[in-house]
Amino acid sequence: MQGRGGDVLIVGELINSSRKIIKENIEKRNTFYIRDIAKQQVEAGADYLDVNCNEIDAMRWLIDTILEEVDVPLCIDTPNPEVMEVGLSLAKKGKSLVNSLSGEKERYEAMLPLVLNYKAAVCALSMDGQGVPDTTHDRMRVARKLIEDLSGAGVVLGDIYLDLLVQPLATKDRNGVEMLGAVRIVKEEFPDLHVICGLSNISYGLPNRKILNRIFMIQAMTMGVDAFILDPLDRVLMGYLYASHALLGRDEFCKSYLKAHRKGLYGD
Amino acid sequence: MQGRGGDVLIVGELINSSRKIIKENIEKRNTFYIRDIAKQQVEAGADYLDVNCNEIDAMRWLIDTILEEVDVPLCIDTPNPEVMEVGLSLAKKGKSLVNSLSGEKERYEAMLPLVLNYKAAVCALSMDGQGVPDTTHDRMRVARKLIEDLSGAGVVLGDIYLDLLVQPLATKDRNGVEMLGAVRIVKEEFPDLHVICGLSNISYGLPNRKILNRIFMIQAMTMGVDAFILDPLDRVLMGYLYASHALLGRDEFCKSYLKAHRKGLYGD
Repeated sequence: MQGRGGDVLIVGELINSSRKIIKENIEKRNTFYIRDIAKQQVEAGADYLDVNCNEIDAMRWLIDTILEEVDVPLCIDTPNPEVMEVGLSLAKKGKSLVNSLSGEKERYEAMLPLVLNYKAAVCALSMDGQGVPDTTHDRMRVARKLIEDLSGAGVVLGDIYLDLLVQPLATKDRNGVEMLGAVRIVKEEFPDLHVICGLSNISYGLPNRKILNRIFMIQAMTMGVDAFILDPLDRVLMGYLYASHALLGRDEFCKSYLKAHRKGLYGD
Repeated sequence: MQGRGGDVLIVGELINSSRKIIKENIEKRNTFYIRDIAKQQVEAGADYLDVNCNEIDAMRWLIDTILEEVDVPLCIDTPNPEVMEVGLSLAKKGKSLVNSLSGEKERYEAMLPLVLNYKAAVCALSMDGQGVPDTTHDRMRVARKLIEDLSGAGVVLGDIYLDLLVQPLATKDRNGVEMLGAVRIVKEEFPDLHVICGLSNISYGLPNRKILNRIFMIQAMTMGVDAFILDPLDRVLMGYLYASHALLGRDEFCKSYLKAHRKGLYGD
């Protein structure tokens, strides 16, 4: 699985029922709105669309609506295994992404069979029954166990998107760097594994959140994160992603960067 | 030697005689202009001021003028050993920085005695008689030789600022990442050594140079670069530096970041 931006995969995060505007438009079954937000995200560069909701009927309607408009694989985002199965059964394009399982026993056991049955990729959260680990060392302990379990069950490394769960910088000033340290180690130990990262947690509680998210994305890419769940309609963020990608030597002749420049992603 | 921004040292680059406006104001011996640009850089966060010029009289006048205004150590920037010696003899505050020597025999032999006599720190360019190395591997070969030679001559690692000489991305799409790779290795092998980086070369020949410089600074910091020669009057760049520093876990309680926020470095 590989993103159009080279080797960084972009999951568009906007169709999330915990956002008020999405929740309302799901309730109203506003086909136009959902199709439009799907289309916009794909046009802006999303390789996958996240589809977050926790009701079977709504999940079915959402996916039908999205797939009438765009032809991309989906990231099915729900803690409910029944809703997950409905989502996976409807998402026909490419390899679906199960979002998510973790080292918590109940969640792991409910989601793993779905990953295997639908030959899906999986977003694996590096947490267990004890919650989110604090340090690089503890994250690695939980991550290694999870990777070993998934591999043992038959999921290939290239289908695992490990989420090392960044916590807010405001609550502890090493929260960013402990996660970045874990990325570096995990990519050395398992080069074929993907590492996925959300961008909003890091800046929670601090001013200038968008700037912090942007910088953290660049740091995460530098350490080896190769998939992001983000808002592709944030043009500055996307511009920084392409520029960062080029600077990391992954954009032949800076083609994607120059294309992004021509699309006006760098201002004015 | 340590910067006020924590463990990142900022060398203000603006007093450089290759810039037209500086050249003119040196020729006119415009005391007011030089004092002002010195003061502005220090107020904006420069720990050191670079003083670039290649004439003895001009160097003497520049340093006298600067030191009437600000009380910071200086980075004496000239390939001419006589001008260097005049600069070092006048720069009284703290530890001066010799900018620069390299593995080229003639330059090395001319500058090393000055570094030792004036107990200065030194900006060491990782190049030799064969020019600037292309790959991480070649950079490391040249850098190791230079570090060993300097250490053998009595320069402690903490006084060496290694410049791994980033080349323009536009001429080769791996130019950024080869340099970043060398930073990572050199910081693992020599944790006490400093790595210094200029920011304008990387973006030469590409559009949106300021944005590319900014992103490359973040990547370089993530890999372990701990000193930059930059324009401290670029408020966005400085804002990104403080934010990046905080995200890397080096800003207790995000104090410097929040101070930068209060100073309005993050716009509006």
